[in-house]
Amino acid sequence: MIRERHLFGPGPSNPYPEATRALAEPLLGHLDPEFLRVMDETCDMLRTVWGTDNARTLPLSATGSAGMEAAFVNTVHPGDVVVVAVNGLFGQRMTDVAARCGAEVVAVEHEWGQPVDVDRVLSAHPSPAIVAAVHAETSTGVRSDVAALGAGLRSQGSDALLLVDAVTSIGGIELRADDWGIDIGYAGTQKCLGVAPGLAPFTIGDRAFDRRVERPRSWYLDLGMLGGYVGEAGVKGGQRTYHHTAPTAMVASLHAGLTRILEEGLEAVWARHQAAGDALQAGLQDMGLELFAAEGHRLPDLTTVKVPEGVDSAAVRKELLERHGIEIGAGAGAYATSVWRIGLMGPNARPDAVLLVLAALKDVLGRA
Amino acid sequence: MIRERHLFGPGPSNPYPEATRALAEPLLGHLDPEFLRVMDETCDMLRTVWGTDNARTLPLSATGSAGMEAAFVNTVHPGDVVVVAVNGLFGQRMTDVAARCGAEVVAVEHEWGQPVDVDRVLSAHPSPAIVAAVHAETSTGVRSDVAALGAGLRSQGSDALLLVDAVTSIGGIELRADDWGIDIGYAGTQKCLGVAPGLAPFTIGDRAFDRRVERPRSWYLDLGMLGGYVGEAGVKGGQRTYHHTAPTAMVASLHAGLTRILEEGLEAVWARHQAAGDALQAGLQDMGLELFAAEGHRLPDLTTVKVPEGVDSAAVRKELLERHGIEIGAGAGAYATSVWRIGLMGPNARPDAVLLVLAALKDVLGRA
Repeated sequence: MIRERHLFGPGPSNPYPEATRALAEPLLGHLDPEFLRVMDETCDMLRTVWGTDNARTLPLSATGSAGMEAAFVNTVHPGDVVVVAVNGLFGQRMTDVAARCGAEVVAVEHEWGQPVDVDRVLSAHPSPAIVAAVHAETSTGVRSDVAALGAGLRSQGSDALLLVDAVTSIGGIELRADDWGIDIGYAGTQKCLGVAPGLAPFTIGDRAFDRRVERPRSWYLDLGMLGGYVGEAGVKGGQRTYHHTAPTAMVASLHAGLTRILEEGLEAVWARHQAAGDALQAGLQDMGLELFAAEGHRLPDLTTVKVPEGVDSAAVRKELLERHGIEIGAGAGAYATSVWRIGLMGPNARPDAVLLVLAALKDVLGRA
Repeated sequence: MIRERHLFGPGPSNPYPEATRALAEPLLGHLDPEFLRVMDETCDMLRTVWGTDNARTLPLSATGSAGMEAAFVNTVHPGDVVVVAVNGLFGQRMTDVAARCGAEVVAVEHEWGQPVDVDRVLSAHPSPAIVAAVHAETSTGVRSDVAALGAGLRSQGSDALLLVDAVTSIGGIELRADDWGIDIGYAGTQKCLGVAPGLAPFTIGDRAFDRRVERPRSWYLDLGMLGGYVGEAGVKGGQRTYHHTAPTAMVASLHAGLTRILEEGLEAVWARHQAAGDALQAGLQDMGLELFAAEGHRLPDLTTVKVPEGVDSAAVRKELLERHGIEIGAGAGAYATSVWRIGLMGPNARPDAVLLVLAALKDVLGRA
């Protein structure tokens, strides 16, 4: 009944086979000693892909967007100034989420397709409580320089917390949370980590945790309570406190995906994503297509390309899906019909996937 | 590496085999027409197990506890009086969640192990905005009479919304949301529905939706936005609006579990749970053990039994797990060491599971 798909859109990607197989393993209870071992190892491996030593590094029991919510709901006190770098849909969403938490939001708007202008963000407000940015904008295929943002805050002597969306960077491109000064980070499983959607890898450092909201408006995402069950508890070897029933099958799957990535080697995985993205972007340009994201700031794992004049964007996507089983994404927001998004993430960051998507696009455009 | 388990605790239960197999099917994107069909069918089947015609019936992308949060965060306006019937841990949790949403909470406390006293709840406040209760208390194994609560509200002429936790009742015992006057209900997948944990089946009627909070504090659980993507959109055949990436593997698994249940027939599934629970409870009493939940109000799917005097509760659970691969649950709260919780849910509501858990308990108690 369910057809196989090449998931070459902005996510979900096809999972690593190991991650899929783990979903079908016998289910464990959320308090089973064997599951707690799997959970602790998962948190350890997440520390590696985040590039952090944070004790409070854990998979939240919901998708990446809940990670965004957890980031703000635990750290924004009513009236706090939150500077948000907006260069796409997910930066926009941050302003909505932060405002619902009672923040005074200072949005620093950028043209879509451009990276975050670090200087403009740093000078947007004299003393923000939080500065937030998206590392890899899923809506535009742009990478921003989070390291420079962190360094800039430090050189300013700012005590603002740096909050970063790494949904489309984690496990695909260089990410070094501690080196870059990221205080709070959230991600998703369904992009370069090569696991089905359903969990939000999350990390928060001591500095941010110490300033947290004691009783956040969300019970489900209350990090003070969650820490008694995962992450922290695993590190400290402390007593586990039941909070909610963890999605054990999804955690087992994330464990398998992370194991696969770390066996290959994180830097080798980054290089594989870079090579696939470079080849795809060169191939698209060879076909006469124009890339959307600003040159020099293009994500390798998610490529945005302009729909040629006169071509029906949706019809091409439909034909790719029905004829070749290939999913690519529409553009986001105002670019819904004028941009395509092509992701080569996780197991799809491979030369054969590059050849396939280029050949299929040529085939379908030739018929259009 | 992962051992097989008999999950006879308070949840997760072992999933139906169909639900496990569906997890390992090729992954679909969250906007794939094939996935949208799976999602719409899932919402339809959820209407059947909820006993509702509510257009807004959908699986939320997080676990049952997030369902509780969604219920309150979308319906509690600051200062609203919320009457909560508390006869166990999950009623207690409701008071915390409602308070974080700004409710003036009126908690009607009951002795644990007893059902909700409908008259006390109805007379707790002259004009509450919401009356909330747990249908099947997972912490105590008690069933409360939600139908009587709904009828009482109607005969009072009250316009309070009735909010019900059906985590441990849905798919296991009689549940008729519309007939009983339930306005807002949430559940989990990992109990009697026989699916891994990770989604919260949710339903909300028009009356409650019309009074909802326009811009709730939670973006992730904002029903106004979610309705554009699932549930409502499926019924109305309207345009889908992207909100977040749905956990597609989990939804496919829920689809498979629900299909299995409805093929067997919902009332037949209820009868199967009742028969297994009756046999288990008779068997435990034949062994000389004493049940915890009040007679006449015992859940068939989740049985609570007192730990015999002088027996080490945790040691017995450990031995059951290590010797027989059987997980049963500790008691909750103050009963952590004095009560066990034994669940026979989903595929485990079967005569052979009854025999196995009774025999294993006899074996381990005989060694103790």
